[in-house]
Amino acid sequence: MQIKDTHLIRLPHGKDLVEALTQQCRHKGIRMGIVSVIGAVQGATIGYYDQIEKVYRSRHIDGGLEITSCHGNISFKDKAVMVHAHIILSDAEGRSYGGHLMSPTTLFAGEAHIQELGGKPLEREYDETTGLFLWRDEDKAEGNTNE
Amino acid sequence: MQIKDTHLIRLPHGKDLVEALTQQCRHKGIRMGIVSVIGAVQGATIGYYDQIEKVYRSRHIDGGLEITSCHGNISFKDKAVMVHAHIILSDAEGRSYGGHLMSPTTLFAGEAHIQELGGKPLEREYDETTGLFLWRDEDKAEGNTNE
Amino acid sequence: MQIKDTHLIRLPHGKDLVEALTQQCRHKGIRMGIVSVIGAVQGATIGYYDQIEKVYRSRHIDGGLEITSCHGNISFKDKAVMVHAHIILSDAEGRSYGGHLMSPTTLFAGEAHIQELGGKPLEREYDETTGLFLWRDEDKAEGNTNE
Repeated sequence: MQIKDTHLIRLPHGKDLVEALTQQCRHKGIRMGIVSVIGAVQGATIGYYDQIEKVYRSRHIDGGLEITSCHGNISFKDKAVMVHAHIILSDAEGRSYGGHLMSPTTLFAGEAHIQELGGKPLEREYDETTGLFLWRDEDKAEGNTNE
Repeated sequence: MQIKDTHLIRLPHGKDLVEALTQQCRHKGIRMGIVSVIGAVQGATIGYYDQIEKVYRSRHIDGGLEITSCHGNISFKDKAVMVHAHIILSDAEGRSYGGHLMSPTTLFAGEAHIQELGGKPLEREYDETTGLFLWRDEDKAEGNTNE
Repeated sequence: MQIKDTHLIRLPHGKDLVEALTQQCRHKGIRMGIVSVIGAVQGATIGYYDQIEKVYRSRHIDGGLEITSCHGNISFKDKAVMVHAHIILSDAEGRSYGGHLMSPTTLFAGEAHIQELGGKPLEREYDETTGLFLWRDEDKAEGNTNE
């Protein structure tokens, strides 16, 4: 895949992080790429995937937290652009809480880096083994890399 | 923004991480970009931004720690290049401590990746709402992306 | 260094993460680059480098965990491609455990981003000061950046 463009973006105070990133993708026409964010939130929701029950369990953490790591990718699910990211948040003592980034996660301040990729966007489809929506199977996915 | 160059850099043993990264930027003429580091430190200082009082509170952790995540960006503040990064450190039990990367954070060993971006560097200015120095407001900042 | 290619890769369920990444490098002929992964594991092994004794101590964590951060680089050691990555894992409560990524770390699901770099691959050699295999000394390493 080729890099199409690189974006450094100031994210809006008070907005939801997942929604802010998805809106940036829609607004800029980004269909595939990778994303990372540093900043702080006023509260966050993190998910943990129960591999036995095949369901996400979410947990909300209230109060000001640093976004110490937030990384993910941009691809398609059900014909719409979708941001899949994991996040780690740290409190005043430095203690760190991580998981699958969910809403609501309310931005205090955020700086995003998006590397936009060209080519046919990867698409997610249901995977029986894991119960997750994953990129089409490895060989097909590799077919998309234009190699 | 366009990618100008990519650097993989061995960082110097015994030096401060923030200073080592800033020196690399000055030395190589890097004015905008993103940065990540893995490695280990002999001690670290992490900051937490108190969103109510609008001040950073810092905490120093002594002893050998893995740099398990360190990500940030490079832009301008007060006419000088500035590295803004968040870091997560892990101890012998794997316990993780995160926050805003501050000095002193003394390198034991470090491997940095810097992706240098071209174009007019983003500049930080004081933001009343958060009390932080953020990139000029979103629309202006987007104007800098040459889109 | 110039970017040669970008890969978004679905990693195989049930395989070891270090081995899966190394195999991708071999299969695609990647000799230098950076790598990141999000996803989940069925169990993980993390390492901590004892800076006094100069040995890695490893710890295995059983059970399903989110890969909340996994970042590293690809270069050469002993004439073979080598992935060096650090990882942070989060459990059902969001508690985070980090360290040097080791085997066995068994994938439940994984999405990797590899940015492949061109030019002469960086090579690791033994460093007396740290007891680690680091990229050849800073000046030589910088010589490799074609600057």
